[in-house]
Amino acid sequence: MLDLTRFETDPDHVHDVQSFAAGEWIGPDAAARDIHSAVTGQRIARAGNGALDTEAMLRHARNVGGPALRAMTFHQRAKLVKALALHLGQHKDQLYAVSFATGATQKDHLIDIDGGIGTMFVFASKGRREMPDDHVYLDGGVEQLSRNGTFLGQHICTPLQGVAVHINAFNFPVWGMLEKLAPTLLAGVPAIVKPATASCYVTELAVRFMLESGLLPDGALQLVSGGLGDMLDRLTVQDVVSFTGSAETALKLRSAPHILANSIRFIAEQDSLNASILGPDAAPGTPEFDLFIKEVTREMTTKAGQKCTAIRRIIAPDPHVPAVIDALQASLAKTTIGNPKDSATRMGALVSASQKADVLAKANQIGAEAERVFGNPDRFEVHGASAEAGAFLPPMLFHCADPDRATTVHEVEAFGPVSTVMPYRDLDHAIQLANRGHGSLVTSVITRDGDVARTVAMGAGAYHGRLYFNNRNSMGESTGHGSPLPHMVHGGPGRAGGGEEMGGVRGVMHYMQRTAIQGSPDLLTAIGRK
Amino acid sequence: MLDLTRFETDPDHVHDVQSFAAGEWIGPDAAARDIHSAVTGQRIARAGNGALDTEAMLRHARNVGGPALRAMTFHQRAKLVKALALHLGQHKDQLYAVSFATGATQKDHLIDIDGGIGTMFVFASKGRREMPDDHVYLDGGVEQLSRNGTFLGQHICTPLQGVAVHINAFNFPVWGMLEKLAPTLLAGVPAIVKPATASCYVTELAVRFMLESGLLPDGALQLVSGGLGDMLDRLTVQDVVSFTGSAETALKLRSAPHILANSIRFIAEQDSLNASILGPDAAPGTPEFDLFIKEVTREMTTKAGQKCTAIRRIIAPDPHVPAVIDALQASLAKTTIGNPKDSATRMGALVSASQKADVLAKANQIGAEAERVFGNPDRFEVHGASAEAGAFLPPMLFHCADPDRATTVHEVEAFGPVSTVMPYRDLDHAIQLANRGHGSLVTSVITRDGDVARTVAMGAGAYHGRLYFNNRNSMGESTGHGSPLPHMVHGGPGRAGGGEEMGGVRGVMHYMQRTAIQGSPDLLTAIGRK
Repeated sequence: MLDLTRFETDPDHVHDVQSFAAGEWIGPDAAARDIHSAVTGQRIARAGNGALDTEAMLRHARNVGGPALRAMTFHQRAKLVKALALHLGQHKDQLYAVSFATGATQKDHLIDIDGGIGTMFVFASKGRREMPDDHVYLDGGVEQLSRNGTFLGQHICTPLQGVAVHINAFNFPVWGMLEKLAPTLLAGVPAIVKPATASCYVTELAVRFMLESGLLPDGALQLVSGGLGDMLDRLTVQDVVSFTGSAETALKLRSAPHILANSIRFIAEQDSLNASILGPDAAPGTPEFDLFIKEVTREMTTKAGQKCTAIRRIIAPDPHVPAVIDALQASLAKTTIGNPKDSATRMGALVSASQKADVLAKANQIGAEAERVFGNPDRFEVHGASAEAGAFLPPMLFHCADPDRATTVHEVEAFGPVSTVMPYRDLDHAIQLANRGHGSLVTSVITRDGDVARTVAMGAGAYHGRLYFNNRNSMGESTGHGSPLPHMVHGGPGRAGGGEEMGGVRGVMHYMQRTAIQGSPDLLTAIGRK
Repeated sequence: MLDLTRFETDPDHVHDVQSFAAGEWIGPDAAARDIHSAVTGQRIARAGNGALDTEAMLRHARNVGGPALRAMTFHQRAKLVKALALHLGQHKDQLYAVSFATGATQKDHLIDIDGGIGTMFVFASKGRREMPDDHVYLDGGVEQLSRNGTFLGQHICTPLQGVAVHINAFNFPVWGMLEKLAPTLLAGVPAIVKPATASCYVTELAVRFMLESGLLPDGALQLVSGGLGDMLDRLTVQDVVSFTGSAETALKLRSAPHILANSIRFIAEQDSLNASILGPDAAPGTPEFDLFIKEVTREMTTKAGQKCTAIRRIIAPDPHVPAVIDALQASLAKTTIGNPKDSATRMGALVSASQKADVLAKANQIGAEAERVFGNPDRFEVHGASAEAGAFLPPMLFHCADPDRATTVHEVEAFGPVSTVMPYRDLDHAIQLANRGHGSLVTSVITRDGDVARTVAMGAGAYHGRLYFNNRNSMGESTGHGSPLPHMVHGGPGRAGGGEEMGGVRGVMHYMQRTAIQGSPDLLTAIGRK
């Protein structure tokens, strides 16, 4: 168990992050990698075990966890998810305390930790309201396949009989796990969670709380801290890989011959070149203009810009570009950077020195076709921490005057507090620029005009997993450009990975098989119990 | 245009199968491959052009066909699909006349040609009844994302802005095209159809009828007779590949780095090791037993067993295996094999000599772990045609006494009139054997027992795209183990390709993008027009 009294504070203390494999907690071995504090740069933990018995883990999930979960109804599993959420809620202060070392502020924790718990509550509620107190989910209505009705059709969904392997990104060590775990458990499928190593000590603690609750059947949840070894080569048609992370890693994993030859489901959610469009009606001086500046600033600085949904491209009407840049400069200048534990800090650190180096390299690439108009990575103030030791960066705003000729700004993502302003001539041009992301998780549009909304939906919908509209009427209750909600699908085509997650019951289906059933009415009733 | 007076009858006549590319009919060039009659073995046609301008075809679809189709509403497109079906119906005699050369009987034509036209009618009807007279399809209801309702969620679907490339199998040159084309057009997406070369002259004629009807907007339908060249390497995130065929070819195509790197949708429907289970209650002497024998015989002999849904594994209660073999031997013995044009013929030829050779090779592999109990490929009668010149084979039944130890019978598919009987001890064992196909398109169960149906659905659902139940009450109106219906999903996990087709509106979604929309109620109304 992580020792909170020494973690991150005692320079001599290195926390051994454990895996939970086939019912046993297993510590790191010689294959482990060191993990450093994002804030101090000190070595705080190590994770990884080269000798994990991946086959035993899969067997444990398939033979112990799966049958136990499948014996429960959707309602029973929904109650389980809710109880887990309540239990995690009772321990969230400890999760906050540990999570500062990832560079996240308390405001960031509300997204990751409270957001993750909230996602579980929504899935629990959807499971109770929209799924039956039974083992079979009916998808759609009865199909009349015969004149006299003696032979009918009905689609059903039943749980996959394998295991879900969740490969998560470093930026949301709690939400990233829970947004996948909730629909998986609701489906009746056991999970093996593999968090990114850089922040896996937070996930480890959350997993420990869930396991210690005694709520979960044996084998329903396992954890790999460190590398997965050969696990993916041992999957079958009944297993699923759900991946969140970089396009590069996703491509490598999904290209594995074993995955392809067995048509193993691979759900990918990749960071993408998301955009925000300032509507033609949202001129400077309107509440929409101010809202736009506020949303962009927030998306650039929350989690130090390490969000797969963050706004990378700021698309504004040509005449308003100077005003947008002015306003963003003023707004970004108020970003107090520093120790995430300080309540005055608006933006913490990136997760690691290597992420910082990667963001700087990508920002340099963007700088080749866009001018930096805010933020100097060589000269910025850091409060309450060392700018050299920690993985700090300032928000960096670029201006790309000719986005039609540019390519880097539409293709290269600096996964940090980096974004580029670009002008559009008319709405069709704005849509065209948004679509140049070649498939994105989200584009937002700040507008009050229904025709603008309809035009963007028709023109950019096919390139986006989500379109977020906001204006003076909705801003009081809007949930934010960058926040995936459990009710709505999260994912996007092409560059964004081509996958979907969440979206209520839709997200549960990724862990179930849809089967067309044909037969006499009495047999269909026996199967669907309806 | 195919010359029906000379086709197949004049030994000196070779039909040049054309492609329809960017508005032009283009004949074969030196890269063309010869096509032989399945029945006489004579060269009857040639197809293929190595100089097809694939980029021009894609551009034509994207820039001309797509915008025209997207300008129509779902209802207008449904009417188009219906009008095409009516038009094809007026020309089906000519399609029959040409299709005999593929080895198909008139009964087979009813599945391929009439079945294909019928599929279009169902999609047209679904489009009118289940989709709006608008351009945006609403997926599910409004999500309450805020307390006061000023910010809401709604999922919408809009057409992809690219092109659907349909790669079809040789066995159903008409149905195989139309079951993909109907949902594609309904979605508002142009198609490029690439039939298998062996039977592409039938597809060519059907495409010609559709184009000559004048119903289709320019660019909505193109045809590649012969190879696709580099077309798949030119696809983007807005395109879709829909493939039907062998697992081997599917794997090759879907593994292409370009497809993977761009998350290009690849829907695969592969032949699989489908099964039929004789229910524990369906003992010899019951109507169910006779029904089982009838369905198995039909599935083995229809299209000479060249159906991706054909029954490859006959799973019967251990004590009833001798009776099943006896009855099948008697039933199969009545299969008159011969010239498909003769009305007395029950089973025609395989599509080509190379398919025949492949089936024989696979049957030999199966023969290594199962005993052949019916059908000798070296000695069987062929009526009205030459057994040597045509691609004829007899139905071949195998008996595998130990299916637990066997592997070939669960993994190797002889894509012809070949099937294997195997015993089961109890229902769980039967399910276990069915699931050893590692993912199948369909398993059927002949039973009257609701508990049996429920147990199979829970135990085998996750391994199957379709489960077909039949008994004395439904057999009068049942649609057949092997018939995919437009109302129901067709496809299956794992070995079956992991894809889905049809299933009514579900099948239209493969050519649309689902997008989560968030915003104020008035903007959502403007987008959804509801």
